[in-house]
Amino acid sequence: MEAIRARVARRALGTGDRLPSIRAFAATMAVSPSTVVEAYDRLAAEGLIRARQGSGFYVASAPPPLTLAEIGPKLDRALDPFWVSRQSLDAAAAVAKPGCGWLPADWMPNDAIRRALRKVARTDAAILSDYGATRGPLALRHLLARQFATEGVDAGPDGILLTGSGTQAIDLICRFLVRPGETVLVDDPCYFNFQALLRAHQATIVGVPYTPNGPDIERFADVVAQHRPRLYITNSALHNPTGATLSPQAAHRVLTIAAEHGMTIVEDDIFADFEPEPSARLAALDGLSSVIRIGSFSKTLSASIRCGYIAARTDWIEALIDLQVATSFGGVSPVAAELVLAALSDGSYRKHLDGLRRRLNGARRDVADKLERLGISPWMMPRGGFYLWCSLPVGCDSAEVAHAALNHDVVLAPGNVFSVSQNASRYMRFNVAQMGEPRIFEVLARALAATPD
Amino acid sequence: MEAIRARVARRALGTGDRLPSIRAFAATMAVSPSTVVEAYDRLAAEGLIRARQGSGFYVASAPPPLTLAEIGPKLDRALDPFWVSRQSLDAAAAVAKPGCGWLPADWMPNDAIRRALRKVARTDAAILSDYGATRGPLALRHLLARQFATEGVDAGPDGILLTGSGTQAIDLICRFLVRPGETVLVDDPCYFNFQALLRAHQATIVGVPYTPNGPDIERFADVVAQHRPRLYITNSALHNPTGATLSPQAAHRVLTIAAEHGMTIVEDDIFADFEPEPSARLAALDGLSSVIRIGSFSKTLSASIRCGYIAARTDWIEALIDLQVATSFGGVSPVAAELVLAALSDGSYRKHLDGLRRRLNGARRDVADKLERLGISPWMMPRGGFYLWCSLPVGCDSAEVAHAALNHDVVLAPGNVFSVSQNASRYMRFNVAQMGEPRIFEVLARALAATPD
Repeated sequence: MEAIRARVARRALGTGDRLPSIRAFAATMAVSPSTVVEAYDRLAAEGLIRARQGSGFYVASAPPPLTLAEIGPKLDRALDPFWVSRQSLDAAAAVAKPGCGWLPADWMPNDAIRRALRKVARTDAAILSDYGATRGPLALRHLLARQFATEGVDAGPDGILLTGSGTQAIDLICRFLVRPGETVLVDDPCYFNFQALLRAHQATIVGVPYTPNGPDIERFADVVAQHRPRLYITNSALHNPTGATLSPQAAHRVLTIAAEHGMTIVEDDIFADFEPEPSARLAALDGLSSVIRIGSFSKTLSASIRCGYIAARTDWIEALIDLQVATSFGGVSPVAAELVLAALSDGSYRKHLDGLRRRLNGARRDVADKLERLGISPWMMPRGGFYLWCSLPVGCDSAEVAHAALNHDVVLAPGNVFSVSQNASRYMRFNVAQMGEPRIFEVLARALAATPD
Repeated sequence: MEAIRARVARRALGTGDRLPSIRAFAATMAVSPSTVVEAYDRLAAEGLIRARQGSGFYVASAPPPLTLAEIGPKLDRALDPFWVSRQSLDAAAAVAKPGCGWLPADWMPNDAIRRALRKVARTDAAILSDYGATRGPLALRHLLARQFATEGVDAGPDGILLTGSGTQAIDLICRFLVRPGETVLVDDPCYFNFQALLRAHQATIVGVPYTPNGPDIERFADVVAQHRPRLYITNSALHNPTGATLSPQAAHRVLTIAAEHGMTIVEDDIFADFEPEPSARLAALDGLSSVIRIGSFSKTLSASIRCGYIAARTDWIEALIDLQVATSFGGVSPVAAELVLAALSDGSYRKHLDGLRRRLNGARRDVADKLERLGISPWMMPRGGFYLWCSLPVGCDSAEVAHAALNHDVVLAPGNVFSVSQNASRYMRFNVAQMGEPRIFEVLARALAATPD
């Protein structure tokens, strides 16, 4: 099986070509004909080859297209990351979305965005019409470099690459570093789209349990030694879905273990602006040597104006630019980057962030109280952000609860969507900013009551 | 070598693991130890394994990152697609860019874009802040569906997926259909970034010579039969770089041959709006059964407001949506889609296109005359668009001419950047809209004179 697979992979055997006869191949491989028959039958079952009546085996016409929903174990559709994403993204206005990963539109700085649009309407024609520089506009990279410097991350403007989104930033890094079949480490639980993205790269995904202070360090060391992952993707600040924060001790241990095994780390800092004060950052401790920092403005400014970034070693940035040109002919839209720059430079933006943090502090406490009354308990109280990772009452399965709630136009995010090991069936991630409607708690109460005890 | 490669690919042998001893593996494979020594030495030369003094062979730490500039034959940097793209994209304002693939900013409908920005500044907060629907806003898909219907392409709004750009549209299709090592067919010459994109997918690229009526059909049939490509990527209308147009007869033959071999076609319609009247379209003849149509608004509206589209079978669209959510969490920016919709719906847009076509007709004739005086002759006179594919005087190498011109701040696009077979060293692609400065022709004349005869 190995030898045939390798020949097909190298195209020594092309589509439609006849495989060696069973007798001949048995002689070549110094095995019995029955071994070859079994190998051919298994390869046919996999769809790589097919038998033609009376004339042997042939390489099958074309491998099937990459349909993400079919890679990996077959999941209940309620536990399929695409189902949760698509239900949330395509939901009608009347649908409540406590399962989604963004703030309601009326929590966002829309006046600043409107001012930015009017400002950009008066800018140079070249910004309105041209593809723009491959790294993205210099002024926004300068602004980010100054901000990163205050956080102890020393990336100059040439160490920053603007991308179409935070997800595209990780995707580009995976294209650069991860080949099909390679192993990537994530937290268990982790942001569900990390798993979807890694499936698209046909990576092997391994998880390590997450604690309130970061990954379980003993398990982390074991998993890295055993699986030698190419990459570890994580959120240090306000981890998704738990809201936990990496402790300085855990950060140091993670970096030491990664260095021992030559593992690169992607630190997704997308929730950093929600922190009351900055926590430990892998990118700052490591000095962007084997840590790549990515982020975007989707959570605090706008998810509609798409702009993400990568901060990394400049030699890696050079290779990432080539990949970004090849696969999207440039990264961020120059108009989008100007809008982000105008909005971030708008005097109101810091106040907006302060207001958001205060509002979210209130919402977290309020929603936690209401959930407690239903027997739903936060795993921990996060320092910031909009997520609560909660356990349901004993005996409740979060996938069943999500199913039941969907019938009443409430999209929830059941725990196993986030879990590589699928051991989070009692957990649910709630977005406190999306839970202003009292009917959500009524639907939840009914859904909990309807699931078997 | 095959057996070891397969074990590493399956991770039966992980990074740092010791390979079987030469004696043991020779016995397993029923070959002589010297055969195993040779195989191990070759694998070590490839970098997959490495020898440790006195203790055998080990799987090398990590495969090197994907650096596009190093895949495929080593090219003179002037013939590297990334070099031409990056020189053009990152060029200072003073640099002339007859080698680039877009119109000057002052040829674009900037007033319509400014009106669109002011209009969007007054729109709903949800459009300004939210991720938006996974297919992209319905109103723009409706507008496109109506336009496609007038061209005989019957895609409903559900058969259209908006993407971040035209290049991202092709990239998404390659993720869906093309696995590493699979073969993709392109025209020779073709848009250079098709090759860069396919390198990023680690596809094997084969080319078929392009004629003034489309691909050379005899060769097309041979190449498809011999290599059985998974995909054929082409421009039917105003082919890049030649400006040629697919004839109805050639279109029919291409579809027939593709159907015989189960080959999917991506028809990149990015230059369609420059045609004086619509030409034959593979997507229209085929009815979007095995043809996928892609395009964008970068060439006629704005390359800065990034928005592309895919029109395809709805079952393929569904799978492409999952892939797009996984790899960029949504496709087009909703703000960008609103800007495109507003500009396309602006009463001035049709007039802008008419004006562009007239202006380009004049520029093509004018530039062709001036080039002829330097002994540079168009391969054919295109019906529209901004490209002229030209042969240089006998004995001139276009890469050398491009090198010489770059020293005088003129970026050119030498023929072999576009050629899979590298047989276009006498050709050069000129963008007539970027050749208003008289000094460009002076620099060209000097560069031609300086190259050996």
